[in-house]
Amino acid sequence: MDTTDEFQIHLQRLPFKKATAIETVYALGNGHFGVRASNPLQGDNPDYPGQPGLFINGFYDLTALHYGEDYPGYPQNSQTMCQLPDPRFIVLEIDGLRSDDETFSVKQVDKNLNLKTGLLSEIYEITSPTDKTVRLTMQTFASQDDARIYGVAYSLSALNFSGNVKVIKQHRYTQQQIPQHDIDVRNVQRQSQLTCTYQEADHPTMQMITRKSQLAITLQVQPLKNDDQPVPKLTTQDQLPTYVTDFDLVPGIAQEVDFVYSIGFPHPVVIANADPDTVDQTLANETFSTLLNKSAHQWAIFWDNSDVELKGDAKLAKSIRFNLFHLNQAAGRDGMTSIPAKGLTGSGYEGHYFWNAEMFMLPFFIFTQPETAKQVLSYRYSKLLQAQQRAREMTVKKGVLFPWRTINGTEASAYYPTGTAQVHINADIAYAVDLYVRVTDDQDFLATQGLPLIIETARFWLSYGHYATDDAHHGRFVINDVTGPDEYTAMVNNNYYTNRMAQHNLYLAAHYARRLGQTDNNVIGKLGLTTTEIDAFQHAADQMYLPFDPNRQIKKQDDTSTEKPVWPIAETPRTQFPLLLHYHPMTIYHYQVNKQADTVMSDFLFPEDQDQAQLKRDYDYYEAITVHDSSLSRAIFGILAHRLDEADKSYQYFMDTALTDLTDAQGNVGDGIHAANMGGSWLSLIYGFAGLEIKDTTLHLHPKLPTEWLEMRFKLWFQHRHIGITINHQAVILENLKGKPITIQIGDKQVTLGSERVTVPFPI
Amino acid sequence: MDTTDEFQIHLQRLPFKKATAIETVYALGNGHFGVRASNPLQGDNPDYPGQPGLFINGFYDLTALHYGEDYPGYPQNSQTMCQLPDPRFIVLEIDGLRSDDETFSVKQVDKNLNLKTGLLSEIYEITSPTDKTVRLTMQTFASQDDARIYGVAYSLSALNFSGNVKVIKQHRYTQQQIPQHDIDVRNVQRQSQLTCTYQEADHPTMQMITRKSQLAITLQVQPLKNDDQPVPKLTTQDQLPTYVTDFDLVPGIAQEVDFVYSIGFPHPVVIANADPDTVDQTLANETFSTLLNKSAHQWAIFWDNSDVELKGDAKLAKSIRFNLFHLNQAAGRDGMTSIPAKGLTGSGYEGHYFWNAEMFMLPFFIFTQPETAKQVLSYRYSKLLQAQQRAREMTVKKGVLFPWRTINGTEASAYYPTGTAQVHINADIAYAVDLYVRVTDDQDFLATQGLPLIIETARFWLSYGHYATDDAHHGRFVINDVTGPDEYTAMVNNNYYTNRMAQHNLYLAAHYARRLGQTDNNVIGKLGLTTTEIDAFQHAADQMYLPFDPNRQIKKQDDTSTEKPVWPIAETPRTQFPLLLHYHPMTIYHYQVNKQADTVMSDFLFPEDQDQAQLKRDYDYYEAITVHDSSLSRAIFGILAHRLDEADKSYQYFMDTALTDLTDAQGNVGDGIHAANMGGSWLSLIYGFAGLEIKDTTLHLHPKLPTEWLEMRFKLWFQHRHIGITINHQAVILENLKGKPITIQIGDKQVTLGSERVTVPFPI
Repeated sequence: MDTTDEFQIHLQRLPFKKATAIETVYALGNGHFGVRASNPLQGDNPDYPGQPGLFINGFYDLTALHYGEDYPGYPQNSQTMCQLPDPRFIVLEIDGLRSDDETFSVKQVDKNLNLKTGLLSEIYEITSPTDKTVRLTMQTFASQDDARIYGVAYSLSALNFSGNVKVIKQHRYTQQQIPQHDIDVRNVQRQSQLTCTYQEADHPTMQMITRKSQLAITLQVQPLKNDDQPVPKLTTQDQLPTYVTDFDLVPGIAQEVDFVYSIGFPHPVVIANADPDTVDQTLANETFSTLLNKSAHQWAIFWDNSDVELKGDAKLAKSIRFNLFHLNQAAGRDGMTSIPAKGLTGSGYEGHYFWNAEMFMLPFFIFTQPETAKQVLSYRYSKLLQAQQRAREMTVKKGVLFPWRTINGTEASAYYPTGTAQVHINADIAYAVDLYVRVTDDQDFLATQGLPLIIETARFWLSYGHYATDDAHHGRFVINDVTGPDEYTAMVNNNYYTNRMAQHNLYLAAHYARRLGQTDNNVIGKLGLTTTEIDAFQHAADQMYLPFDPNRQIKKQDDTSTEKPVWPIAETPRTQFPLLLHYHPMTIYHYQVNKQADTVMSDFLFPEDQDQAQLKRDYDYYEAITVHDSSLSRAIFGILAHRLDEADKSYQYFMDTALTDLTDAQGNVGDGIHAANMGGSWLSLIYGFAGLEIKDTTLHLHPKLPTEWLEMRFKLWFQHRHIGITINHQAVILENLKGKPITIQIGDKQVTLGSERVTVPFPI
Repeated sequence: MDTTDEFQIHLQRLPFKKATAIETVYALGNGHFGVRASNPLQGDNPDYPGQPGLFINGFYDLTALHYGEDYPGYPQNSQTMCQLPDPRFIVLEIDGLRSDDETFSVKQVDKNLNLKTGLLSEIYEITSPTDKTVRLTMQTFASQDDARIYGVAYSLSALNFSGNVKVIKQHRYTQQQIPQHDIDVRNVQRQSQLTCTYQEADHPTMQMITRKSQLAITLQVQPLKNDDQPVPKLTTQDQLPTYVTDFDLVPGIAQEVDFVYSIGFPHPVVIANADPDTVDQTLANETFSTLLNKSAHQWAIFWDNSDVELKGDAKLAKSIRFNLFHLNQAAGRDGMTSIPAKGLTGSGYEGHYFWNAEMFMLPFFIFTQPETAKQVLSYRYSKLLQAQQRAREMTVKKGVLFPWRTINGTEASAYYPTGTAQVHINADIAYAVDLYVRVTDDQDFLATQGLPLIIETARFWLSYGHYATDDAHHGRFVINDVTGPDEYTAMVNNNYYTNRMAQHNLYLAAHYARRLGQTDNNVIGKLGLTTTEIDAFQHAADQMYLPFDPNRQIKKQDDTSTEKPVWPIAETPRTQFPLLLHYHPMTIYHYQVNKQADTVMSDFLFPEDQDQAQLKRDYDYYEAITVHDSSLSRAIFGILAHRLDEADKSYQYFMDTALTDLTDAQGNVGDGIHAANMGGSWLSLIYGFAGLEIKDTTLHLHPKLPTEWLEMRFKLWFQHRHIGITINHQAVILENLKGKPITIQIGDKQVTLGSERVTVPFPI
């Protein structure tokens, strides 16, 4: 295994010590589940300042929403990802005193995450009230090979005594108040409750059933083979099945006990009482290291596909890898789940999926882990029915409306002006489907899932928008009463980003419907498409109104955005940010002030829309009124600064983006990683510095490295080719690692890549 | 006393039988308190389908508001008017069986309200489980002479037996869920809790303290002198002080016991534990009839000032009087309270005051009960500090922002888009102040309270609005992010009504500041006014932007209102109204559809703004998109129809307005009267059919009676004159009942009214 420093996250090098922050940074997961790296003795202690827990993607309970004034179509429940018992948790017993009854002092000596293998190694020194100190070395991994598997090895040695120490392992579920760490949802405490049943069977098995959503999950723990080491005994304590391992310790000799958790997939209670796929008897033949190796092998494959090597700034290089590692840990890949805003590392945003899954994180997967990307898109396909119902609830006659925030596909946003009104989610999904199809050439996905997603989202626009009859809009297609990505402006007419994305959505619908209609009438027939409707898509797209300010010569964020006074950003004390925590929404909406990239997000996505002069005007105008209160903001501004050759700005935005969580720049990493910001750091590298652009079905690069770096290397999948790209200050070096020759565009140069490596020297 | 039918509301003539509706219609009050006319035996019975209770103006508890997503500046509590123990409640005991333990059958034989005297007379036949039937005759009144006094007389006679019957009277407070009947607030159940303490003293006294608002109120009951009738004995039952009256009944002879309640004024607990003004020992010398007569005398004065006599439609005439009676019962007159939307007759809208107090009800009081009008305006003055704090919370640097709904002066609206955003409340208050001053010539009020109200509200506009810099608004003064009276459109820029009213507010500020500044520098100095600021008021008013649609040649409701598709009103099933109970707000806002008069409300208030052709265009346009889901709507449309000589329409709108509660047209009179609609019916008569208009300081009438009527007679106070006006189809007959001669304008004719009656024949 590679143990070079480039892939190691050492506790000593982190600039913070807060328990919750450390738990998040070292959280392990695999898209199916995530485990926070809490102190293993404290998981049951209400005074422990951390928030230990296991999260399972898609395992949520319904939690009631209350409104001072309630209106039709308001969601009556939110969906809250359950915080489950910590599988790292153990009780130590020394001299008959138990660490869950008495105060044992626990000192964290070391913590190290190997990003390359996914192994987290930790050392604790634990002292009993009788002053006996043991050194506990823990190794844990979340398997990338079998999504159900979480392995944990406890190795103990005595430091100042010889004698018996017991390690007691037990599932316990303590009812807890679910803490709220949603920047948008303050002072709401939502309670969930699980029903737990325990079965002994061959191994302790715990079934948890959510109270309202009636979802079940099965957790099972079993010991792993470990020759010559103490063997845990299955017994019963406090009426719960319990493994007790007796260690007879002498100083200098470590003893070890290893467990494997099998964490089932959530399923509705009505389907089955037991979850047979969790009871994997073959695990009995495995050891911790065989399971770890299988997982590490998958991590190796991941890195071979997804690594971005940066030379010239070791700290930054590591931070980028940390981001990619966490992105991979966050993404559901069972077609029933997506990527929560905080991954599976914390309770922030209740474990909800937002538009940033498609717009900020999916590109990384599309280009480097296309199978995962497909599964994340399939999640949306699996929720088409819910989105259709939502559209009907909103009195939209055709098409679907995807929820702004959700787990189960129904709307969970309790504030529609920056929730349901962000109907751009529809177009974001269609955009991602198209990008996936163009990059992967996955025509099967397109026909079965992609086209329904694109058509149904397009239909929404035809119903929700209309052709203007007033003078100001010249008969163009307008979309009123929406909110764009900038949540500091709400419920406006003709948000630029929304209209441009809707236009794209409509074009995609017309394009793919026509293309697939030529070859496969069934595909079209199943969707009830007619030529008239396809023409209507095309016409609405052609006639889409895109607001423009003729005086300032900028794209206008919406019909009236530039009419408002500008928020006095410079005069606002730093303590008053983020604004949404300090000012009434009406006050914020009263001014020109952007939470994040909005109109310029369109400039980013559609570079063909504007020349450099236009981009410069848009960029300058919107940068001046943007406060970056969203972690999604800086990556986009950084990429655009790069396109504008504003190297210093671009570099600074990128560094802020890349280091957000490893420096806890926003002070809230304890609530979970900023997964979309991590996706944004990849966008910055590939769409920014490497200058990636897909025009039709051709890959373009306009690379330019910051002067601070020596070299950047990465690989992309593109139309069944695997392309290795190295960029330094002298040249771009390209390799076609798999597949037939392909022509790509480097700057102004067309390059045909066969089996030979091609070097394109600067200037290009 | 006048007992002519014109002033009697007979139970038999009501078109409904629902207990809650009857309780509301027969509720008695005097602006300080209100008592619902519930079955007197059922007040304590949870199965009784009515909602018995006593309401005290300004006596509320704080009830928590919850939000799915909470934001700064959201009110954390609502204010809920407390529903207090029913003072009508008694327990009967026959054959040792009590009506609060056993099932007594209670038949309501008759109920009659004499509007002229305020006496409510009721007859019940009550049968015990032992089949003994007594006839209970009840008489009650809420004193107009002493606001604390509620009188209740119980007269019993045996119908089918001779023997002992006990009447037991006790204050009881049963904790209850406060029902919610707010059309805007569905499915929210707010709980309040009172702490009750009982003192025996000379008479049973009950102090109630609200849990969170910490307000106290004292209720006291004492028997009234009644010669030769049974005397109640003060005793203790269930640890509560109790009056027990023994009746030894024989058929054919009625016996009576009379009580008087003394209902104190709410005061903060911190001020005093006891409320001395409730213990009125002089009451011991009074009889029911002496107290009743004092009250009836005040009612007679009321009718002498406020009656509107209609000849030609007896049912309508009575309904109008019913409306005026209830308006008078609803209005607080202690300077600390205003007029709740449901008066003091029910729990609807939680007992809150809205803009309709000033805009729909106050004109009636200004012209006929100016002292009450002054007190209602003084309430606003008493809440200036809270309104100032609210403005600061909303980051508005100068001036005040009055709450959209409130009791204690702080905002209680839980949905800002149709709550706080209705900033027109500020201008509404200023408008009412000016109207009051112009009609009454109360210069003292103007200097002490009126000017601060006008100046501070005007200051808000200068801070909240701004001079436009965009092309569309030509540098005019614009006001963004507001909601007008039409709650089916929210958070718009330049709502016509709001801007026009703000303009008026600013003009008033400049006008009065200059006028008072000439004579009294102190007045100006206290407000910190400068010439610069006064000029700024004037300039903003002069430059106020008023949206206009050049194609349709109509006043535009807001900058973008006419750009939206029109709601398909005709195709919407009747069951889907009111829309707000059936459609998501985003859906409603997406269309042109008005809940109520909005832009045309400005046409109503400012007739000088438009000629008939303009009015006709505005009227036709907005009528077609208005669904009248608010009870405030029809009166305004009716008045404008009258101005347009659309007699049938005008008559129909008026009849719908006038009869709303006596026919339970909206099906929810059980939650309380529609007080503002009652005010609207007066507006329709006086501003509509009599054509009242005040131009500067001159009273104008443009009378025209519907052909359905013979005559209308009423009196108005105007600048210290009391003017009697009779309108029939031949002429207008005017009398100056008090004061110096005055010149008024009847149609095109100037008429100088001295001591002689003047007849102005049609056509005028």
